[in-house]
Amino acid sequence: MPLVTKMKTLHELFLTKLMALYDIEDQLVKALPKMVAQATNRDLKEAFASHLEETKMQIERLEECFSLLKEKPKKIKVEAIRGLVKDAQWVIKHVQKGPALDANLIAAAQYVEHYEIAGYGTAAAWADSMEHMEVADLLTATLHEEQAADEKLSALAESKINDEVPMHDSEE
Amino acid sequence: MPLVTKMKTLHELFLTKLMALYDIEDQLVKALPKMVAQATNRDLKEAFASHLEETKMQIERLEECFSLLKEKPKKIKVEAIRGLVKDAQWVIKHVQKGPALDANLIAAAQYVEHYEIAGYGTAAAWADSMEHMEVADLLTATLHEEQAADEKLSALAESKINDEVPMHDSEE
Repeated sequence: MPLVTKMKTLHELFLTKLMALYDIEDQLVKALPKMVAQATNRDLKEAFASHLEETKMQIERLEECFSLLKEKPKKIKVEAIRGLVKDAQWVIKHVQKGPALDANLIAAAQYVEHYEIAGYGTAAAWADSMEHMEVADLLTATLHEEQAADEKLSALAESKINDEVPMHDSEE
Repeated sequence: MPLVTKMKTLHELFLTKLMALYDIEDQLVKALPKMVAQATNRDLKEAFASHLEETKMQIERLEECFSLLKEKPKKIKVEAIRGLVKDAQWVIKHVQKGPALDANLIAAAQYVEHYEIAGYGTAAAWADSMEHMEVADLLTATLHEEQAADEKLSALAESKINDEVPMHDSEE
């Protein structure tokens, strides 16, 4: 039975966090095209498409973080992001395409945005503690993009999409 | 092969969201005692313990929402929360008890807080759209508790715990 050497330094926690974020973004690059394909509202389709492009840039930023730390980019398997993607697939299967699915895709995407806000928030705070200032700036740039993406989705839901979903069957 | 009747009304989406939140809180009531047990820092232990009590109240609030809507409380299985809990268990297994684990337990808890902020944010917005004002107020009360819990954990990490984690092996 191999002994597990437990992590105990902030450096180790931080590298593990970067590897987790690298895995998360990789899963999202695979999942976002399905969100684009399933969205009906034109603005929502565009929001998902532009977030896909942002996600690709966020991957490059993570690669730059690894490079600044003189580490090779590596992934570590994160269960939560796989669960988030599975739940979004459940929604696609169980909700009718159109306003109802659009409203629920926004909800699913905002789960992911908030999840990432927490992840990048922690990573940026740890980079800061370790005085890796350039790395902290890269992580903070992504953090702000995720916050902006979340706000954009809230605005779209509240100004438009939620109101297009019939409340009850009788209103169709 | 049974045909799936797809959801298309906001009422259906909203009830499903409540059932998902009910499942999420139930998973958390089971997971939080492990966080309390694994935390070393006294303030963190207390923060987790008091959040466990809050979570129990949030479950009661969800039951009140179901009752106001004249529905029986029901759960629907959410994969994401199971993934979040699995990732937290990974952390407990791979990080040494003490400041390093405390810092990482905070990170794991903040993932969950943010995930819940997104969930209650959507639920409150949908309740609002449907003019279920009493239900919206209950969901908003929980939303604010989750936001406060997240901020408390950030303050604890940044004011104290992150600085107690040795940066590199040499500093132990």
